[in-house]
Amino acid sequence: MAFKGDVLLVYLPSQAPPQFLEGVRTKFPHLEVRWIQTPVDKGQLLAPDHLTAEQWAGVTMMCIYHVPKPEVIPDVWFFQAASAGTDTWAKHPKYLDPDVIFSNASGCQPPQIAEWVIGTWLSHEHHFQVYAEQQKQELWRPRLEMQVNVSTGRRMGILGYGAIGREIARLGQALGMEVYAYTRRERSTPESRRDETYFVPGTGDPDGLIPAKWFSGASRDDINNFLSQDLDLLVVSLPLTDDTRGLFGTEQFQILSRNKNKTFLSNIARGAIVNNDALVNALETGLIRGAAIDVADPEPLPKGNPLWKAPNLFITPHIAWQSSKYWDNLSDLLLKNLERLANGQTVINPDNR
Amino acid sequence: MAFKGDVLLVYLPSQAPPQFLEGVRTKFPHLEVRWIQTPVDKGQLLAPDHLTAEQWAGVTMMCIYHVPKPEVIPDVWFFQAASAGTDTWAKHPKYLDPDVIFSNASGCQPPQIAEWVIGTWLSHEHHFQVYAEQQKQELWRPRLEMQVNVSTGRRMGILGYGAIGREIARLGQALGMEVYAYTRRERSTPESRRDETYFVPGTGDPDGLIPAKWFSGASRDDINNFLSQDLDLLVVSLPLTDDTRGLFGTEQFQILSRNKNKTFLSNIARGAIVNNDALVNALETGLIRGAAIDVADPEPLPKGNPLWKAPNLFITPHIAWQSSKYWDNLSDLLLKNLERLANGQTVINPDNR
Repeated sequence: MAFKGDVLLVYLPSQAPPQFLEGVRTKFPHLEVRWIQTPVDKGQLLAPDHLTAEQWAGVTMMCIYHVPKPEVIPDVWFFQAASAGTDTWAKHPKYLDPDVIFSNASGCQPPQIAEWVIGTWLSHEHHFQVYAEQQKQELWRPRLEMQVNVSTGRRMGILGYGAIGREIARLGQALGMEVYAYTRRERSTPESRRDETYFVPGTGDPDGLIPAKWFSGASRDDINNFLSQDLDLLVVSLPLTDDTRGLFGTEQFQILSRNKNKTFLSNIARGAIVNNDALVNALETGLIRGAAIDVADPEPLPKGNPLWKAPNLFITPHIAWQSSKYWDNLSDLLLKNLERLANGQTVINPDNR
Repeated sequence: MAFKGDVLLVYLPSQAPPQFLEGVRTKFPHLEVRWIQTPVDKGQLLAPDHLTAEQWAGVTMMCIYHVPKPEVIPDVWFFQAASAGTDTWAKHPKYLDPDVIFSNASGCQPPQIAEWVIGTWLSHEHHFQVYAEQQKQELWRPRLEMQVNVSTGRRMGILGYGAIGREIARLGQALGMEVYAYTRRERSTPESRRDETYFVPGTGDPDGLIPAKWFSGASRDDINNFLSQDLDLLVVSLPLTDDTRGLFGTEQFQILSRNKNKTFLSNIARGAIVNNDALVNALETGLIRGAAIDVADPEPLPKGNPLWKAPNLFITPHIAWQSSKYWDNLSDLLLKNLERLANGQTVINPDNR
């Protein structure tokens, strides 16, 4: 009689995948599922503030991207967050309540985010933006004076070797790159290199076999040491914490500038990890090769912010997580977690509060 | 005393790689190498017309991208072409002379061309051009209404499974795609699926193990059958021949339009394989998902040609072959061929005239 009396409210911008509904129906016939598709307005997902009291009534479990107001969810004891990062929840009473079970969506986005990282990297290295501009001018001009560097034999550093970093590593390896991984705690044994979070079968590096070299440490010196490893591509895939806020400042870009080949910075984590002024200065003065960011501080990034016009920078508005497969992956994780809960096991991706 | 009296003229837009010069010096001390770096003017490689009589004098072997005038190379008996396609040589008397040995550069470009194919594909699927435009307007607007399809589980068709096609297949497989290969002659046995042409170690699919399905045939019906295999991405990597000229016309785009998901066309072969009007029409009427072309007919593509303004089309001016590693790869092939010639063996990549 698992979940008898429970109501699962799912608020996501997709319809319920049939395999999810079928899974719930056969395994948990007593669970009431309220699947409400998030409306999109001008490309933005609407917050659940428009939901009626009836729709909120009796909800005890949630799967959601937004952070709902505490007063509408007094009885919720399990949250499946629809994002890997849960910093937006940090001060929410439900999040702070140790009796509430909280699973994040780590592992659902790596395929699309890794494609974004590789796609923006190749776009930069192959000068696609230059040619897109020439196309607008109807100008056929090979720019052979612009060097194209293939990825083979180059070095990718991944700052934060979690689910996303591991899938980026896998694609980097396919491109012939050498991968260096950085983790906060030391991972010197095969066991410690494993990742127990959710991953889409066939993706990632769950056993941690790809990196040629591992780095670790919690101090600024440890990070700085990693940044000085002659990285061609540096991917930031760290959570935003008090430690990582403003991690990339003037000093870090100076360190990067001393790498043998200039470093390309890819930030798919959180904007506040990189100081805006320091990034703009690094791009304007050529301390780094270029950068691609899917995140900014603040979001939305206002008109007039110097980031918009910085050279060799590509900006997307926090969309790298998105794909047609995301909701399939997330509902697969949710269903697996329901099974764990029904069996009295700990959930996959318990959030490290 | 191999190559005593021979003069090898290399005319390429790079300096001689030290490992090449060292290889020649130790293995063929009697061979005179004249390495002349091709000047680049406004992004274009200058033809060798500016070379002096002294520089042409006594030349018996050449490594070159351009097609030199017959009268300046009466004594050349071995050509290492610097391009994989040799259609520009088709009517050259040296090319037609069966006593002249001719090796093409197949296998030197696959890493960079495959990156170009994957990079343009990801750019399209992740809507990078839309976001680049928004960036210019300093507009932070997630466009969640635009679906992003990850590559996992999608199908890539490769028309012409040679050295380039095989490296594209390898990267496609890494992205989780299913690969269908088309070759002119049937490849039903493991032996027939092998590729004996040059390849950069660690790249490609020399044993032909990647495709889930093989197609073959020389007729238009055979090609049309391949085009109707629900391909998400179709890569054209065929040589330009009488058979392939104008291969993609109205009929072929109609066939593609009936695929389950619309097909994205990537042409890194030759512009004349695709009829311009048919391609423009297919893009304008949405018969295909989009296209990326590194080649056009004619080249340079003149201002005012309708291709420039066709929707969902990305054009680069025949630069996908280029990379910083290309000359290393080509001079590695050249050195291996010199060894073969010195031993009386047939060269690698003998051109199929």
